[in-house]
Amino acid sequence: MAIRALVWGENVHERRNRVVAQVYPHGMHQTIADALNTDSAIRAETATLDQPGHGITPQRLAQTDVLLWWGHAAHGDVSDAVTDMVCNAVWSGMGAIFLHSAHFSKPFKRLMGAPCNLTWREAGERERLWLTTRNHPIAAGLPDHFELENEEMYGEPFGVPEPLETVFVSWFQGGEVFRSGLTWRRGAGNVFYFRPGHETYPTYHDATVQTVLRNAVKWAHNPAPRLADPGAAPNVPVAKAPEPITERGPRLHHDGAPGLR
Amino acid sequence: MAIRALVWGENVHERRNRVVAQVYPHGMHQTIADALNTDSAIRAETATLDQPGHGITPQRLAQTDVLLWWGHAAHGDVSDAVTDMVCNAVWSGMGAIFLHSAHFSKPFKRLMGAPCNLTWREAGERERLWLTTRNHPIAAGLPDHFELENEEMYGEPFGVPEPLETVFVSWFQGGEVFRSGLTWRRGAGNVFYFRPGHETYPTYHDATVQTVLRNAVKWAHNPAPRLADPGAAPNVPVAKAPEPITERGPRLHHDGAPGLR
Amino acid sequence: MAIRALVWGENVHERRNRVVAQVYPHGMHQTIADALNTDSAIRAETATLDQPGHGITPQRLAQTDVLLWWGHAAHGDVSDAVTDMVCNAVWSGMGAIFLHSAHFSKPFKRLMGAPCNLTWREAGERERLWLTTRNHPIAAGLPDHFELENEEMYGEPFGVPEPLETVFVSWFQGGEVFRSGLTWRRGAGNVFYFRPGHETYPTYHDATVQTVLRNAVKWAHNPAPRLADPGAAPNVPVAKAPEPITERGPRLHHDGAPGLR
Amino acid sequence: MAIRALVWGENVHERRNRVVAQVYPHGMHQTIADALNTDSAIRAETATLDQPGHGITPQRLAQTDVLLWWGHAAHGDVSDAVTDMVCNAVWSGMGAIFLHSAHFSKPFKRLMGAPCNLTWREAGERERLWLTTRNHPIAAGLPDHFELENEEMYGEPFGVPEPLETVFVSWFQGGEVFRSGLTWRRGAGNVFYFRPGHETYPTYHDATVQTVLRNAVKWAHNPAPRLADPGAAPNVPVAKAPEPITERGPRLHHDGAPGLR
Repeated sequence: MAIRALVWGENVHERRNRVVAQVYPHGMHQTIADALNTDSAIRAETATLDQPGHGITPQRLAQTDVLLWWGHAAHGDVSDAVTDMVCNAVWSGMGAIFLHSAHFSKPFKRLMGAPCNLTWREAGERERLWLTTRNHPIAAGLPDHFELENEEMYGEPFGVPEPLETVFVSWFQGGEVFRSGLTWRRGAGNVFYFRPGHETYPTYHDATVQTVLRNAVKWAHNPAPRLADPGAAPNVPVAKAPEPITERGPRLHHDGAPGLR
Repeated sequence: MAIRALVWGENVHERRNRVVAQVYPHGMHQTIADALNTDSAIRAETATLDQPGHGITPQRLAQTDVLLWWGHAAHGDVSDAVTDMVCNAVWSGMGAIFLHSAHFSKPFKRLMGAPCNLTWREAGERERLWLTTRNHPIAAGLPDHFELENEEMYGEPFGVPEPLETVFVSWFQGGEVFRSGLTWRRGAGNVFYFRPGHETYPTYHDATVQTVLRNAVKWAHNPAPRLADPGAAPNVPVAKAPEPITERGPRLHHDGAPGLR
Repeated sequence: MAIRALVWGENVHERRNRVVAQVYPHGMHQTIADALNTDSAIRAETATLDQPGHGITPQRLAQTDVLLWWGHAAHGDVSDAVTDMVCNAVWSGMGAIFLHSAHFSKPFKRLMGAPCNLTWREAGERERLWLTTRNHPIAAGLPDHFELENEEMYGEPFGVPEPLETVFVSWFQGGEVFRSGLTWRRGAGNVFYFRPGHETYPTYHDATVQTVLRNAVKWAHNPAPRLADPGAAPNVPVAKAPEPITERGPRLHHDGAPGLR
Repeated sequence: MAIRALVWGENVHERRNRVVAQVYPHGMHQTIADALNTDSAIRAETATLDQPGHGITPQRLAQTDVLLWWGHAAHGDVSDAVTDMVCNAVWSGMGAIFLHSAHFSKPFKRLMGAPCNLTWREAGERERLWLTTRNHPIAAGLPDHFELENEEMYGEPFGVPEPLETVFVSWFQGGEVFRSGLTWRRGAGNVFYFRPGHETYPTYHDATVQTVLRNAVKWAHNPAPRLADPGAAPNVPVAKAPEPITERGPRLHHDGAPGLR
């Protein structure tokens, strides 16, 4: 069965900015979804900010194996309710891929627990991405480096927690570097951040970038059944302790009482 | 100069529950602060939930090298403003130590980006903590294992991100295990979680536990000057790029424009 | 195409010790291979110490996706040449799973760069393995914990480098704990250590243990083509630098010279 | 008491190559030791390959808090005995800092368990090192980036295990990047790799590089008493199990028997 991907796009600059509209006439989300759908192992749909509930419901996330998220101009317009839904889905096992300016999106910042800040410059400069680990699944089929002739610069320090793995590091023409591909696990969900994708450049039309996105969807997919309640903190009564024990000493809670939160 | 520690205590059960009040007549926070102050390299103060602003201001956190946090009954009463202050201080370089039921405190969950859930049982059973890495600074002076005759059980899976280091793992009489000492870094701040400390038992009077707390304060202390704005994302104008470049292609932002958030 | 697994067994105690021979009449390696072969996605063979070259050649490893290794009595009899072959194969992308007493095998110690020591007791006590991360691929289909009624105890501190992920932690009846399932990456190869499997007990006949082994083989399998020379350190001549540069200053090496090792 | 640093230098090119001799007339090891000794908190000595036993004995390592290692032309001349001594000392708690071409030294490769390979070019190009994490102790007092006008290029992929922390990433004029400052723990010992330091350039005369080296020595220093036998794997007899148990089932070992290795 195909991996069910959902590409969430803010879809603001595509409609308001002539340059972006020319590069992505159907929206960045559609270009990304089309790129994923060239692989029969993936079946990608889209959702956008302007749809009711931003196109996201718990039911839809329950049917999503991997969520891709692109946002920039309107991070603040994403509701806290949707942010909560996305984080819960990740914790329960949904994969999540955050693209470019989504480093400052609400769900990414919430999942990282860190400022996720960086330095930046919009000058159409050359970016060269290097693999730091050969044969990582996210780098399947890639050469040791590849270039994007025009990109926005993002520079270190990148304010994220130490990743599980660093997959890509970028070189920028103007003199900066950036850890451009990083993995984490949050609950049962695999999380990947991929740096390229400024909206005024044709990055998501690039064949190598599209390969990375397809690889990342496969990597992020956790085929295990989704956890029903990823934040459950069940009491284990004395009678059900794996080893027989006798209760001792004072206690705060009555039998069967829920824990304090 | 001594390390400035601030012990934040919820101070609810100490006042409402007779058993807890007997074990900690001056509050758990005071017992912990007293234990830290036996070391002349540390100067510990306290703050509690019932104080104005929970006893926490940005100014006070700016004067705090390491914050210790204990909460259980009233996590929900901690204001979002204080949670934000604490996270910002950690990102700017303040150390933070979360104790026992603080696994479900707002600042810890925010810093982890994960559910932080576990299983639990209040039966006064024996806990034995094992070092997983000898000679870690947090374990200075400790034997390979030590026991607490009566503790609440916390069981795996513990819903936190993979740590930088696992320092302690607990064995419980009833058959469970738990990663009881874990380290992370968030921004410039060192974070440590230490499991023991249920309020109905005299855990914080235990000499070995007190040694761990003093060690942890020293480990978490980052002597570097605090970052003024840990979430800053400055634009680097073309003219100030480390390498000379010429701007190319279309752009969204005007010179000197703030980034989008 | 099926994943090609190779189960390497020392096959010493199975022949010399009556108890072990009764539990594993065809050798532990054969029991493990049979368990893997119940899954049509895996095709497992075996090799043993007493075969010429321990049954291992570079050609055979090149045809192996995942190597499983069990040894105990005769670690010192494994040749350095075979150890080198195994490490090179891992670095080039072969998965490797080290079982129980293989913590002290030459290839594992070489890949870890650490003492890999622990404490131990052979008393047939109960071991209970707990998941530390739900829905990890290695734990697919498993409950939160499972038991082995008779096992050898291994206790912390376990002298290995911090893992990428801790998947299992064991509770022992005699009071110890152990990180029983740990993952690392070495070069392009995925490495997993799994604790259970003392030769006098029927551990590898246990259905849950067999599930873990099958899961681990699938997790360790890296489908990327094997790296031809995983230790290559090629010179990049000035003329082939990604960005045009002019050579400056003194140099040690002539053009096309191999690096120093 | 001052931290006792030992700077080990190969001291080959300094004597055979006129260019290197001019840059480092007293040897690179002496320049580094002098830089460390400007800080009264450090007391640095030197040792070189041409001394008896390469200037290294178990006794001398027992009196060394942090070892710095530079080698290039003569990695193969370092004896396996000295390599074993160094690894044992690290596992027992000695800090170790590997400099530049020491990525291919025997002790570093042994501690990493990985190929430690990279790409390289000797063209005197500009290197710019970026902090990836602000306020890391190794980066104390440093700006967000600093430059070395002439350096050898080292390029990714760098064949080392995922580090605990990435502290620096380098930008090279010729278009490559490299993770230039990485930390690991091996046993009780802290390990740091720092990239710059090609022998034909005056890198170790650079004030910022010297600051990094002093910071790194302080970071790597583990004040805990050295472990006597970092590879010990003691048996825990049934009578000394933390919890009372009764021996069950068959066993291989007699009471008090040493384990198998």
